[in-house]
Amino acid sequence: MSLDTPAARTIDRSGLRPDGPPREIVVARTVADVQTTVRHAAELGVPVVTRGAGSGLAGGAVAGDGVIVLDLSGLNRILAIDPVDGTARVEAGVVTADLDRAAGEQGLFYAPDPGSVGISTIGGNIATNAGGLRGAKYGVTRDAVLSVDVVLADGSLVHLGRPTIKGVTGYDFAGLVVGSEGTLGIVVGATVRLLPKPARVATASASFATLEDAASAVAAIAVSGARPAVLEILDGATLAAIDAAEGTRLREHGEALLIAQTDGFGAEEEISVVVEALSSTATGVEWTSDEAEADRLLAARRQALPAIERVGRPLIEDIAVPRSRLAEAIGRIREIAAARDVPIFVFGHAGDGNLHPIIVADADADGDIPEVAHHAADDIFALALELGGTVTAEHGVGRLKREWARRELGEAAVALHEQVKAVFDPRGILNPGSAF
Amino acid sequence: MSLDTPAARTIDRSGLRPDGPPREIVVARTVADVQTTVRHAAELGVPVVTRGAGSGLAGGAVAGDGVIVLDLSGLNRILAIDPVDGTARVEAGVVTADLDRAAGEQGLFYAPDPGSVGISTIGGNIATNAGGLRGAKYGVTRDAVLSVDVVLADGSLVHLGRPTIKGVTGYDFAGLVVGSEGTLGIVVGATVRLLPKPARVATASASFATLEDAASAVAAIAVSGARPAVLEILDGATLAAIDAAEGTRLREHGEALLIAQTDGFGAEEEISVVVEALSSTATGVEWTSDEAEADRLLAARRQALPAIERVGRPLIEDIAVPRSRLAEAIGRIREIAAARDVPIFVFGHAGDGNLHPIIVADADADGDIPEVAHHAADDIFALALELGGTVTAEHGVGRLKREWARRELGEAAVALHEQVKAVFDPRGILNPGSAF
Repeated sequence: MSLDTPAARTIDRSGLRPDGPPREIVVARTVADVQTTVRHAAELGVPVVTRGAGSGLAGGAVAGDGVIVLDLSGLNRILAIDPVDGTARVEAGVVTADLDRAAGEQGLFYAPDPGSVGISTIGGNIATNAGGLRGAKYGVTRDAVLSVDVVLADGSLVHLGRPTIKGVTGYDFAGLVVGSEGTLGIVVGATVRLLPKPARVATASASFATLEDAASAVAAIAVSGARPAVLEILDGATLAAIDAAEGTRLREHGEALLIAQTDGFGAEEEISVVVEALSSTATGVEWTSDEAEADRLLAARRQALPAIERVGRPLIEDIAVPRSRLAEAIGRIREIAAARDVPIFVFGHAGDGNLHPIIVADADADGDIPEVAHHAADDIFALALELGGTVTAEHGVGRLKREWARRELGEAAVALHEQVKAVFDPRGILNPGSAF
Repeated sequence: MSLDTPAARTIDRSGLRPDGPPREIVVARTVADVQTTVRHAAELGVPVVTRGAGSGLAGGAVAGDGVIVLDLSGLNRILAIDPVDGTARVEAGVVTADLDRAAGEQGLFYAPDPGSVGISTIGGNIATNAGGLRGAKYGVTRDAVLSVDVVLADGSLVHLGRPTIKGVTGYDFAGLVVGSEGTLGIVVGATVRLLPKPARVATASASFATLEDAASAVAAIAVSGARPAVLEILDGATLAAIDAAEGTRLREHGEALLIAQTDGFGAEEEISVVVEALSSTATGVEWTSDEAEADRLLAARRQALPAIERVGRPLIEDIAVPRSRLAEAIGRIREIAAARDVPIFVFGHAGDGNLHPIIVADADADGDIPEVAHHAADDIFALALELGGTVTAEHGVGRLKREWARRELGEAAVALHEQVKAVFDPRGILNPGSAF
């Protein structure tokens, strides 16, 4: 166990700042370190803010004044991969891409692939129930987690879930811990599912004159019989930002771009079904089963956030709406941008109805994200709820969306949350101020 | 709301008998009926045992002396199917096959397909987190449930979860309710996911001289790159029972049969990969992409339980082990059958490591399942735990496996169960005596 105090360990990528310095920063190397730290915190009645890579976007790992920061990034061993069982046992600090790479050596893959996959940890992914591009077909982190090893608020270690693919003994506490943002217990390890690597991948890209046309294509794909592994949407503002950054000419082809990927033994036939659905409203479609060419088509999606970050400091949002409300959602976000007079770039996982509106406004005098960006975000959250959606699809509630989360959940559900939280953490020392 | 008292509404298919007559039987027609009943029960402090079709195999719906039986089979409306969103809104009493059929009219399907699919209800499937044949690829009921409408122990109605495919606002209480066997609240409705109907299906069947050879083939498939939607195993005793009932000659081909099904655009290429993996140890393999021919290959699996039921009254068990321990599990079950001198037939979902050992012994003087069958079941549960598995993969704990469930979960997890149960149901009126 080593101790240090770099400020970098008190923030994440949300742009939120801590309200004061932490009391201690603990860099755990073993599960026993975590238990000792939690017992120590429990005795003192001091909050513990657990972190992995600090890549969160909702302030879930932002450490407030006087708390103990518990860094699990050193718990980074892949303990076992069993290709016959299709499972891996990992410590919480394993970087997600490292697990996927290790699985790949055995012909398998780890499906959840958040944008942060190269830097974020399995523990952080579990805390937020992270999604990703492949979610449209393969689901999110909760779908991949079979069991978790959790240090409870009294420092005891408990195993929740099971190593088998199926099992219905008892309540699904493993699933409950996934997405609980460090508020129910501290996940120190997990058994996760691995799947056979798809035999082939095919990729298509289509331009649309209007966002409505793109949304129509998403609907057409939904009823086409195809089930793309990836179905991404980028709006005109995002395309223009990429053009400015990369010298491409995406925006001139239309106001929206869709990128779809199918995989498996029938990837090529399936992409032809997707291409047909896209063609009903697209101004242009191309597709490929060549890997290098696919990388070129997917490049726009990868370049989106870096390109927008060149425009200014982004507030990255994360709503989901029913797929049938996608066009309406994007149109209304554009109205919010106009009304608030602030640029909003929209891209996201269209297959899941998950949009990432990126609000970019000049920083205020303190270098913080200005009020107008937060007002625009509030408008977007209200819109998500109005359309029957959610204020966070995959990034988490953290410290930024607590009030909106309460509004989404409703009083009765919030009361259940508070009581279950009290069962797991009666003194309220685990990441207080986050999640709800 | 209508009231009646047929004894059929106090039992399920577990063979367990109630310890006395119920106080009342309420057949609910509306959600308000459910709320009224629960409020009434709460005032009286009388337990409520909720039931759907009564097809459960673990005694979860067996109504004890003096309880109120609450039958939801009349809440059977499919409220909406949205093919673009890929969702359906249903009442709890909808028969699962009816939902699948309605989805099929829109080119979609409802993935969970428990053996009871033609008679069991969505609400019952949610209560037990039911699995099924397609679980190997498509998962279980929890994977299909987006949100639930739940009547809590005080009679209030709460909505848990969300209608969107993704969402991470708050704890996953919808997932927690799935599999909770009526002990946390009464599920009166749900929003579930529907998926595009697979373009094509291909089916293979292979015979093996020994169970070890069949288990080797399961392992070979796991690392082949194929991901069958169905992968079923039947042992020699089961094959002999089918032969006796149907006049087939399955047993003479070997001691084990595997049936695999692939689906999707690449179903035929994928089945060829499966066939290659089967061929490494099989004595014979056949495959087809013809539907009628596939029905013939799958017939053995469908005939298994009815054939065994002709031998005697079955105690149907439901363990899961890691796939890599399948051969060991089946071999050891055979040893248990010999040691206890009681016939045990084994078939199950090999792709999930989920075995259904069926113990058949002559009924005792009261017509009940005899002690020896329960002793053999105990041996099988101990074996499952020894092999790192679970005592119930998809049928639930019910009243039959409570002690074993506690042993599997361990003291610390049981303590969490009891406290969370107390949050949802402080007076303990919801299906007491079931689940843990």
